[in-house]
Amino acid sequence: MAKANPERLSKKTYEARVADARAALVHMQVQLKNAPFPVLIVVAGVDASGKGEVVNTLNAWLDPRGVETFAFHEPTDEERERPAMWRFWRCLPPYGRIGIYAGGWHTEALREDPRSPRDLAEFDTALRRIARFEDQLTADGALIIKIWLHLTKDGQRARLQELEKDERTAWRVSAEDWKSHRDYDRLARLSDTMRRATQRPGAPWHVVDAADPRARNLEVADRVLTRFRAHFRTHKTRPAAAKPRRTTPLRAAGLRRLLSLPLDQHIVPKGYEEKRDKWLGKLNRIVRTASQARRSIVWVFEGWDASGKGGAIRRLTDAIDARDSRVIPIAKPTDEEKSHPYLWRFWRHVPRAGMATIYDRSWYGRVLVERLEGFAREEEWRRAYSEINEFERELVEHGVIVIKFWLHISKDEQLRRFRNREETDYKRHKINAEDWRNRRKWTAYETAIGDMIALTQTRFAPWHLIPANNKRFSRLEIIKTSCKQIEAALEEKS
Amino acid sequence: MAKANPERLSKKTYEARVADARAALVHMQVQLKNAPFPVLIVVAGVDASGKGEVVNTLNAWLDPRGVETFAFHEPTDEERERPAMWRFWRCLPPYGRIGIYAGGWHTEALREDPRSPRDLAEFDTALRRIARFEDQLTADGALIIKIWLHLTKDGQRARLQELEKDERTAWRVSAEDWKSHRDYDRLARLSDTMRRATQRPGAPWHVVDAADPRARNLEVADRVLTRFRAHFRTHKTRPAAAKPRRTTPLRAAGLRRLLSLPLDQHIVPKGYEEKRDKWLGKLNRIVRTASQARRSIVWVFEGWDASGKGGAIRRLTDAIDARDSRVIPIAKPTDEEKSHPYLWRFWRHVPRAGMATIYDRSWYGRVLVERLEGFAREEEWRRAYSEINEFERELVEHGVIVIKFWLHISKDEQLRRFRNREETDYKRHKINAEDWRNRRKWTAYETAIGDMIALTQTRFAPWHLIPANNKRFSRLEIIKTSCKQIEAALEEKS
Repeated sequence: MAKANPERLSKKTYEARVADARAALVHMQVQLKNAPFPVLIVVAGVDASGKGEVVNTLNAWLDPRGVETFAFHEPTDEERERPAMWRFWRCLPPYGRIGIYAGGWHTEALREDPRSPRDLAEFDTALRRIARFEDQLTADGALIIKIWLHLTKDGQRARLQELEKDERTAWRVSAEDWKSHRDYDRLARLSDTMRRATQRPGAPWHVVDAADPRARNLEVADRVLTRFRAHFRTHKTRPAAAKPRRTTPLRAAGLRRLLSLPLDQHIVPKGYEEKRDKWLGKLNRIVRTASQARRSIVWVFEGWDASGKGGAIRRLTDAIDARDSRVIPIAKPTDEEKSHPYLWRFWRHVPRAGMATIYDRSWYGRVLVERLEGFAREEEWRRAYSEINEFERELVEHGVIVIKFWLHISKDEQLRRFRNREETDYKRHKINAEDWRNRRKWTAYETAIGDMIALTQTRFAPWHLIPANNKRFSRLEIIKTSCKQIEAALEEKS
Repeated sequence: MAKANPERLSKKTYEARVADARAALVHMQVQLKNAPFPVLIVVAGVDASGKGEVVNTLNAWLDPRGVETFAFHEPTDEERERPAMWRFWRCLPPYGRIGIYAGGWHTEALREDPRSPRDLAEFDTALRRIARFEDQLTADGALIIKIWLHLTKDGQRARLQELEKDERTAWRVSAEDWKSHRDYDRLARLSDTMRRATQRPGAPWHVVDAADPRARNLEVADRVLTRFRAHFRTHKTRPAAAKPRRTTPLRAAGLRRLLSLPLDQHIVPKGYEEKRDKWLGKLNRIVRTASQARRSIVWVFEGWDASGKGGAIRRLTDAIDARDSRVIPIAKPTDEEKSHPYLWRFWRHVPRAGMATIYDRSWYGRVLVERLEGFAREEEWRRAYSEINEFERELVEHGVIVIKFWLHISKDEQLRRFRNREETDYKRHKINAEDWRNRRKWTAYETAIGDMIALTQTRFAPWHLIPANNKRFSRLEIIKTSCKQIEAALEEKS
């Protein structure tokens, strides 16, 4: 503990101000409880600045029922086998609650000393990922408060000596800490770079002087309260989405590509089955090879109602080992999913190394049904294109192979299939009033699909548009395309 | 593949019957979709009996959207650091869906060859856990279909040779398989023991002859369909719970213990704070020691409304590192939680090795509020006592220290606190109409609390009844009791 010191806050002043801070923090939690956003408090800083103390103090001052603290030790194997940000996505508090992050997602990025061009490039990538992660959360309404606890080099030495002198705290000082002290200047430059790269409008860094522990604690509380009050005023409620009155393409190239797709492929029935079995065998082998190489695969199936997504997925799962794959049907989000940013429900199911996830409909719902039905506000679905690209980029950077299909049929073909479903006993459950409603919006959907294709077409996760009026053709196409993309991905890395 | 063989099913007959089986299985999934139970299909059996083939065949025949397959390889570190059944609890399908378990939770139990008395005791414990796990799920309505694929020793050899001969399947036969073949008789005896011990009324084993792969596949489908049809008839809907008309104690000893608790402890103010700080320091040290020894701690806080659970938890969290602990407030279950057995929501939060979870209210809600408000049916809350004991036993067997508190206040003291909350601005959010409603049922609650104490008092997870009219007394008591129980637990193991 701090000694009596003219520059330091006296115990008496401190205690009086702590009482106020505590009351204000708990009042904040009461207000937050029904608010449509979470609060994320990152406590990072130089060694010996008291990150752990601040985390514990915040926990002591807050009502523990509404707050959860996360410290990121070595990643577990389940975490290592997934993209870097997965471990942070899984720790997001639901709306109305607080997450405190000891070290944040920032400390890990500082662990290595990047020197070689390759290291520096990786460091940049890591920082870019962090910035995008925070952008995405703040765009969704999250309040992110990032505290950087600062000590001068002299201050750090004084603090380490102080801790060592007291037998109750001496255990907290390790050889590592002194090593980091000797390395103070380099680490300071590295953290400066990190803070600059992750200084976002919605998630600024608050540098807090940690020389006096009491003043430090109060300043942290003060920053939290000030940021919360400003945020709460503007984010108390979520604006309702308005239905779009008309749908204009954002970028016409996608729509043109969609409309020019020839739909009526013929396929010679003779020899079809042998051909299909040959490709299924090939798919089986290549998926096994990928699995042995610890590569994961994510399949995305999108397409018109009745375009044959289910059937195509069945053919695919016929060829791969069910023990290494999961099919995730995307329907209405659960209430846990609704109280998180919308990509959270897809991050949940990202496969471990060597496994596959098949999404039967996917995150693209955001820019299709949610755009057209007004479930998402315009600003939400508009920024979704780049959020999605970033999500897929993170998967691919980690080594996941992302295969995206759009199954395309003509409006007439859909009608034929709807009628057939209505007339066939065991298919009737597959069609309902909503399907007919969606069908009436065919043109609006075409526009949205076109925009999706144009704006989420990337080198690392390209769209495959599959003509699907002929089921045999489309299924074979899907198997072949999957083989080719997996093969190319395996060659590229090796 | 099987050769033409008079004893084997011809390809033609097979294909005709497959079409029927597939249609029936998909019809089953349609019925299941809105049913209040899940279906668990375990596929286990001797080596080379085609477990993987059966799993893949079921996946091919079923609609992949309603089914998920789990294979249990080596436990991940997140799994190893928790009680043995945690990894199976986390893979339970929600109601209305199917989980297929390659090897089930049974194969792991067979991995070792138990010879020493100690091994045999562990084997028995593992089997008992499995049986209780299944009992709990079936009691909750789950349909569990356990398939054991059988091959004679000759049949196994023939099958292995057949696989080796074909270049497409030769890779599937390893030296391990031949070793297991030489060990056939011992393994057969071991599996017999396992099957006998886990042969439960609601979850019987179906031994299926695996000599002919086609007949085997059809028989599996047939067992699944037959079991489902019988189950669906009786479990289509969940009976509604009726409110209990009167509350009679199940075992009066608990109520007597509760009512004889002296509530008005005096505590000498002089020296109180030093005493408290001494114990807080001690708690801090002992929790750190436990964490270093990779022991986890589970605290359970139960008590009357306004008995001071929140305050007591705050004192506790003051003394322990927030980075190693989480407070889980138990309120209304989410919809994901509602579509699983009720202990699922508590299993979710079981701490990793060296971490602590503090449950602010807990699974005991089942035998308190759910019993009295009729949220649970009588048979449900009655069996909860033993389910809870089993849950806590599994925690303790894994090395978790389970500390349970009941905070007890008098009816008058509660009234005083309710009024104080209503009159104090920053406490008003803590009291609502429900609190007053619960208060009117004081006597009924006393009975339920008494039964809870009597029926879930175990040697491994004892109840601590804390007189809580005096807050200082109760908080100190909680700290002291926690220290003592953790200390005793650490000594016992070492």
